[in-house]
Amino acid sequence: MPQDVRFDLPFSTPVCEHLEYARERHLRWVRERGLVRSDAGFAEYTSWDLPEAAARTYPYASAEDMVWLMNWFSLAFLFDDQFDASQPDRAERIAEVARELIVTPLRPAGSPPQVVCPITLAWTEVWTSLSDGMSLTWQTRFAASWGRFLVAHCEEVDLAARGLAGTLGVEEYAALRRRTVGIHHSIDAGERARLFEVPERVMAHPVMERMRDLAADTIGFMNDIQSFERERRRGDGHNLIAVLRRERGCSWEEAAAEAYRMTTACLDEYLALQARIPAVCDELGLDAEERDRARMGVEAIQHWINGNYEWALTSGRYAAAKDGPVATAEQAGRGSVDDLLAV
Amino acid sequence: MPQDVRFDLPFSTPVCEHLEYARERHLRWVRERGLVRSDAGFAEYTSWDLPEAAARTYPYASAEDMVWLMNWFSLAFLFDDQFDASQPDRAERIAEVARELIVTPLRPAGSPPQVVCPITLAWTEVWTSLSDGMSLTWQTRFAASWGRFLVAHCEEVDLAARGLAGTLGVEEYAALRRRTVGIHHSIDAGERARLFEVPERVMAHPVMERMRDLAADTIGFMNDIQSFERERRRGDGHNLIAVLRRERGCSWEEAAAEAYRMTTACLDEYLALQARIPAVCDELGLDAEERDRARMGVEAIQHWINGNYEWALTSGRYAAAKDGPVATAEQAGRGSVDDLLAV
Repeated sequence: MPQDVRFDLPFSTPVCEHLEYARERHLRWVRERGLVRSDAGFAEYTSWDLPEAAARTYPYASAEDMVWLMNWFSLAFLFDDQFDASQPDRAERIAEVARELIVTPLRPAGSPPQVVCPITLAWTEVWTSLSDGMSLTWQTRFAASWGRFLVAHCEEVDLAARGLAGTLGVEEYAALRRRTVGIHHSIDAGERARLFEVPERVMAHPVMERMRDLAADTIGFMNDIQSFERERRRGDGHNLIAVLRRERGCSWEEAAAEAYRMTTACLDEYLALQARIPAVCDELGLDAEERDRARMGVEAIQHWINGNYEWALTSGRYAAAKDGPVATAEQAGRGSVDDLLAV
Repeated sequence: MPQDVRFDLPFSTPVCEHLEYARERHLRWVRERGLVRSDAGFAEYTSWDLPEAAARTYPYASAEDMVWLMNWFSLAFLFDDQFDASQPDRAERIAEVARELIVTPLRPAGSPPQVVCPITLAWTEVWTSLSDGMSLTWQTRFAASWGRFLVAHCEEVDLAARGLAGTLGVEEYAALRRRTVGIHHSIDAGERARLFEVPERVMAHPVMERMRDLAADTIGFMNDIQSFERERRRGDGHNLIAVLRRERGCSWEEAAAEAYRMTTACLDEYLALQARIPAVCDELGLDAEERDRARMGVEAIQHWINGNYEWALTSGRYAAAKDGPVATAEQAGRGSVDDLLAV
């Protein structure tokens, strides 16, 4: 299964012009904050090219904002990899750290974490920038989106720890995947990155709520297809192709084809709803300035669908062939070379 | 210091007609769910008359909704009392349970808790009813309000465990009190209890945001005055009168008079803003139906200011003179007779 499966996306998105400026500062930061410690870990981390992912998904961020957006990506992706299948009781520590990450946006910004490790310290620092200048309404929405994602991540880890990762049916899997992919809060962050906020009424409209869910489904399934080799190597059953193959008793190729079909179905439904946004703005009687913020809200979703897709085509994170300490760690059931949950 | 200090509130609020119907079912529930176990605990619990508090703060709830609203009050008040000053390491268990309570509204309703004890089991059950039929926007707002309260409660417990409860200055105390009083989520729940939602734009308006904060300040300070004897008996320094007396080096009487003055100043500012809500509705161009929901949103705040005040005038929870096992427990630094955080 190649990593560079192509999808036909009817929009392209820009890449932030501050990519190189921010990348250099970001890579210094991840070492200073102890998020990447070993040389093998650093080599693996740089091969993922998260700075490109951030620059594609938040193309209008300022140079300084681009740095902490990259910093945020590093802690989120590295935390995602901290589960070690050979140590099932590690699930408890992950849950403990996750709950701390959840409560950070519920404290006054800048408050120190109560569960201390490189991941929680880094998040406290990032949240101070991410929340800066945003309304209480936005902070509330982000905190809930972020919390729902982390709670779902714990459920995923818990299933893996109990050896049940591969036992979900397709419907059950799709419902969990929508929550584990972490797209709702990622789209929310697009408002901070571009310094605007979607009008509350647009955000609460059923069309927008459904668009956000469909974007999450689309990106989650695309990611399952693009990261399939990595997850098979890690023995990670939280993948649509693996779920389809088991449930339908079909071949890997047939399962991959069905996963592709399901992904494009989500994308098509998303696109149909996106076309209705001008009518939604009419219905709500928005003025020109509010319509502009609604348009930027839609673009924030597009930046994530397209930016994540373009980045994942070539990121070393999902490379099919891999060797060295990372492949060894992955084959041993570990997601990462470095332990980031210890004090 | 008498419990029945009088404030001049320019509005009265009704009492739910289903009080007696719901009280009976509620009292059965708290015993069935193990929230009150000993006879001494039950005698103390019934003396608080939380059913009256619920019936005054949510006067328009249906008979069935009134039951779980009372159930919710019981777990929230009883959890509030679980700190034991003689066991400082209990703060960790409280934090663990609090984080579980925070994540419950971030999971699909009905999901089982991961940290299991009578409080978390009861909350999972209540949340299923509390969230029923409410929009994603409301659920998001409630989850964040509730989470902010519980995080602040942990900070309060942590200060007490470190022997620092009495060391805050007035400004610092007032900022923390606004968060520990738990009014934002209590007002949010008023929408579910009356089956409506405040328009998103009204909720996001600076006048409404400030009104909610001032209602929290008013109720928190009133509560500090009304519960003063109980908290002095418990050795609880998280009380405005105690903070004022220490910071100003004045007498208890002078501190109480200043606390009273500060409370009425918050109330006056709240009332001035409340009078501006019709102009806010004009500014936002609301239609008649939206204005009606805005009005009910204001009433939900009034129900809390007035209902909590009326209830606390006579509730046995704040009685100045008390004896028996409860007084013994309180004097030993324990808030409650029964331990509700054990499995």
